[in-house]
Amino acid sequence: MLLVGTGLVGGSFALAAKAHGVFTRVVGTDRSIEALDQALRLGIIDDRAGDAVASNGRPYDAACIAVPLAGIAACVRDASRTATVVFDVGSVKGPVIDAFATPPENYVPCHPIAGSERHGPTAADAALFSNRTVVMTPTATTTARAVAEVRRFWEAIGANVETDTPDGHDRRFALLSHLPHLVAVAFMDVVANAGSFAGAGSGFRDFTRIAAGDAEVWHDILHGNAVHVRRYLDELIDHLKSLGDAADKGGPALHRRIEGASRLRRAFDDDGP
Amino acid sequence: MLLVGTGLVGGSFALAAKAHGVFTRVVGTDRSIEALDQALRLGIIDDRAGDAVASNGRPYDAACIAVPLAGIAACVRDASRTATVVFDVGSVKGPVIDAFATPPENYVPCHPIAGSERHGPTAADAALFSNRTVVMTPTATTTARAVAEVRRFWEAIGANVETDTPDGHDRRFALLSHLPHLVAVAFMDVVANAGSFAGAGSGFRDFTRIAAGDAEVWHDILHGNAVHVRRYLDELIDHLKSLGDAADKGGPALHRRIEGASRLRRAFDDDGP
Repeated sequence: MLLVGTGLVGGSFALAAKAHGVFTRVVGTDRSIEALDQALRLGIIDDRAGDAVASNGRPYDAACIAVPLAGIAACVRDASRTATVVFDVGSVKGPVIDAFATPPENYVPCHPIAGSERHGPTAADAALFSNRTVVMTPTATTTARAVAEVRRFWEAIGANVETDTPDGHDRRFALLSHLPHLVAVAFMDVVANAGSFAGAGSGFRDFTRIAAGDAEVWHDILHGNAVHVRRYLDELIDHLKSLGDAADKGGPALHRRIEGASRLRRAFDDDGP
Repeated sequence: MLLVGTGLVGGSFALAAKAHGVFTRVVGTDRSIEALDQALRLGIIDDRAGDAVASNGRPYDAACIAVPLAGIAACVRDASRTATVVFDVGSVKGPVIDAFATPPENYVPCHPIAGSERHGPTAADAALFSNRTVVMTPTATTTARAVAEVRRFWEAIGANVETDTPDGHDRRFALLSHLPHLVAVAFMDVVANAGSFAGAGSGFRDFTRIAAGDAEVWHDILHGNAVHVRRYLDELIDHLKSLGDAADKGGPALHRRIEGASRLRRAFDDDGP
């Protein structure tokens, strides 16, 4: 297998795939020499990728593209010529797919719903995808055979695969992941202006945890999915204003909204992962 | 000791105070008969408070007022007549103190920075305040002796006591605790409109955890501290709009803001509790 990008997500996939016998040998590339060296030392990759094809002269059996969003389409294009199947692990699907006039038939866009605010090869964890959801968003040209093959990889390492349209996926995660990140960043701006977080407790810690994420990764996500994020952001601002008014007044209307949020959030704890 | 309100915070204080020998006997009241019975069964209290004074005819050595914000001032007034010192554990200090023309000399307003989205006597935990901060905000009339006595209680159970002005406290926690709660509630409104949180991951879980909090408690906090919360909310909305614009455009300005938030949040992990 060819691994392009040896950070948290790519590194974790490689470790898991080897641990579960999906691939016996992983060769890797990374634009950071330091990351590539770490990945080799940590056993994430077995060798640096030299040529464009595997050393036996045949194509790679698979290529995992685990680079920031802005680089994915170019890597997919290259890898689609030298690997039997190619998949990426980006958090936004539409813009990557739209970069192709005709996406390669052997390209299966994927988004594993797993990660952390940590990054780099040292954060890689063979158990990262165990019991986690992976959303596959096949393009109009992706073959059923490629979909089945990539699904097999994820399922072998313990993930639960579901499929969605690229646009349905991007809308959903604009709300559930990208908007929270944008809000956490804006909130940290307010904290920075106030000049101190002395006295902050566990609520602050959890609410802002995502803000510690990698800036390059999140730049690409928030920009790449800006249209969907913006729609939910405008909706959120409306709710913030009306909730601010309700807080000024106090009374049943305020109580009802807090209670509704509390009930919904507790339902998530009961249903959720 | 007299415990008024046997929920998470009051119950945890009573358990800790007994475990550390600060008080040997706790009598309690609660407007909920069910909660009071649970508190008795769980050993949080040793008896229901019958009369307004301790059974030996002398005043209580201390009274801990652990009820929702709207009820604190009245309970403090009553308890200040039958206990040597009185303290509360409310999350907003100004409005409670302002309810008195002259606050009782033996009343020490307190705010332990500890809690969880769980509530009720069954959530009480003797270790809740261990190594946590307690902010004391003495009034203009609080005696130094009362302050020293209440400080002794908190330090005996492992908390770190600091003091602040009531207004300084309320401003600080408007930003660090109350605004995040309001945002999490408004965000759950958007989620409710979207109709599903299928696919939500750990980022969503942590970002929204606080929204599961008790509606009565948070109604009182958001309404009680609405002036300070509003100021930070307006600032946040400005940042959200400009960050939304930056996401549309992409580029160095967006990257810089995400990177700044990430750096600040990582500094909190290094410094924080």
